Amino acid sequence: MRDLSHDRSLLSINSMTVKPWSLEQLVEGCTRAGISAISPWRDIVQACGVERAARLIRDHNLTVTGLCRGGMFTASDAAGRRAALDDNRRAVDEAGAIDARCLILVVGGLPKGSRDIGDARKQVRDALAELLPHARQAGVPLAIEPLHPMFAADRACVNTLAQANDLCDELGAGAGVAVDVYHVWWDPELKREIARAGRNILAYHVNDWLVPTTDLLLDRGMMGDGVIDLRAIRAMVEAAGYRGHCEVEILSAGNWWKRDPDEVLRICLERHQRVV
Amino acid sequence: MRDLSHDRSLLSINSMTVKPWSLEQLVEGCTRAGISAISPWRDIVQACGVERAARLIRDHNLTVTGLCRGGMFTASDAAGRRAALDDNRRAVDEAGAIDARCLILVVGGLPKGSRDIGDARKQVRDALAELLPHARQAGVPLAIEPLHPMFAADRACVNTLAQANDLCDELGAGAGVAVDVYHVWWDPELKREIARAGRNILAYHVNDWLVPTTDLLLDRGMMGDGVIDLRAIRAMVEAAGYRGHCEVEILSAGNWWKRDPDEVLRICLERHQRVV
Repeated sequence: MRDLSHDRSLLSINSMTVKPWSLEQLVEGCTRAGISAISPWRDIVQACGVERAARLIRDHNLTVTGLCRGGMFTASDAAGRRAALDDNRRAVDEAGAIDARCLILVVGGLPKGSRDIGDARKQVRDALAELLPHARQAGVPLAIEPLHPMFAADRACVNTLAQANDLCDELGAGAGVAVDVYHVWWDPELKREIARAGRNILAYHVNDWLVPTTDLLLDRGMMGDGVIDLRAIRAMVEAAGYRGHCEVEILSAGNWWKRDPDEVLRICLERHQRVV
Repeated sequence: MRDLSHDRSLLSINSMTVKPWSLEQLVEGCTRAGISAISPWRDIVQACGVERAARLIRDHNLTVTGLCRGGMFTASDAAGRRAALDDNRRAVDEAGAIDARCLILVVGGLPKGSRDIGDARKQVRDALAELLPHARQAGVPLAIEPLHPMFAADRACVNTLAQANDLCDELGAGAGVAVDVYHVWWDPELKREIARAGRNILAYHVNDWLVPTTDLLLDRGMMGDGVIDLRAIRAMVEAAGYRGHCEVEILSAGNWWKRDPDEVLRICLERHQRVV
């Protein structure tokens, strides 16, 4: 088997990892560093302008491993859910315009005032079913990303890969999963559920879990600086048939966001070779 | 069915909820408030002296719903694991001395320098099997407490009730589970696994998940202040056959630990009646 871990052509940089950068800077910075794939968040794509972003990416011959992010489907009333769906259709279109391999979905947590996580999960399923025809038509696969259970209340009520796989089973073609080691590394069923996900794995995100972790959202580590057995999880996704990129997504207000993004990219490259 | 939620005789106070208090103060404060059950941590029992603690608790006619905590079984070498087991045997003896209904176990996370969570989980299983004969002899049930996945690295590698139930199946008599809403509320399999735990539920801990949560360890909420559907989970444990206490365990450095403990108890009583 081709040793993916030493192949820089399979490294992708999520724009959150170099948050100070605009899309233009991300495109140029990655090109400078010899990195050929990116995964931008919608804010920087929109700031650039979708058409211009698409041209810029094409001109630099970059692969877009995903557009981050759609989702946030849950709401306390029908108008809120409709607005979320409309926004997600636009996200699908944006993903299509920049030729993203998938639209990453952070599905949403409990609506304001709700304690009913079962209902939130039903809302997510219903919204996905409603969004899917548009996504299929646009040729943009939807990547359901299970988020760590510590985000169940405020970000995503899909918290295990098993749940995401169940959704894929129910939804059929056009729905897949994004596996982010940060969210799933602790899962006792990880190996089984990665194998089950199989060809439905649309994206693979890497970073690390720091000990201690000082902030629930913004204290992710660089690969190798934490306790996640990256090589073991990499072997699981490869055994499941995944041949795509390793996308580095590090939300780190206290450390990596403060550094020179060019330096961050150099370290991503080095760690990708050494520990991912 | 008896409506347990309005019965103050089934309210128990974990000493962490009123952290400024010594065991003596906890005993007297609960008695003053008309609360008849406590669950102390080992530090305050040891500070009081185990014999004296036992007498004090007996004299005040208090139920001890659990001793917190044994566990922390994982270590990077055999000597470390032996020391942990020795300490756990002492914890069992202390639990026996104060007539605790169970010894609560926080099983331990990754040993220092390890990234192998599978190995940590094996260490836990082996340690439990080794501790169990002593616990059976002492008549102290071991309550395996699954901890929220955000503690997988540094506190407990048993992170779902399913895992704890699997361990109970393997270990047999003398092993049970502690269900703490804080750790399990997000679990898509919660209802099924609580039903499966059934009579193995040795303790039921209540508190709440705040949005936002500002600290992984020390920002738990008072029941009713967060997003956990306490009544729904209570119904699950009752349907599983649990007829024991609701034990309030709130680790809250920024709020509840700063308040007058007598006031905290009054609020616990009120919330126990109204929302638990």
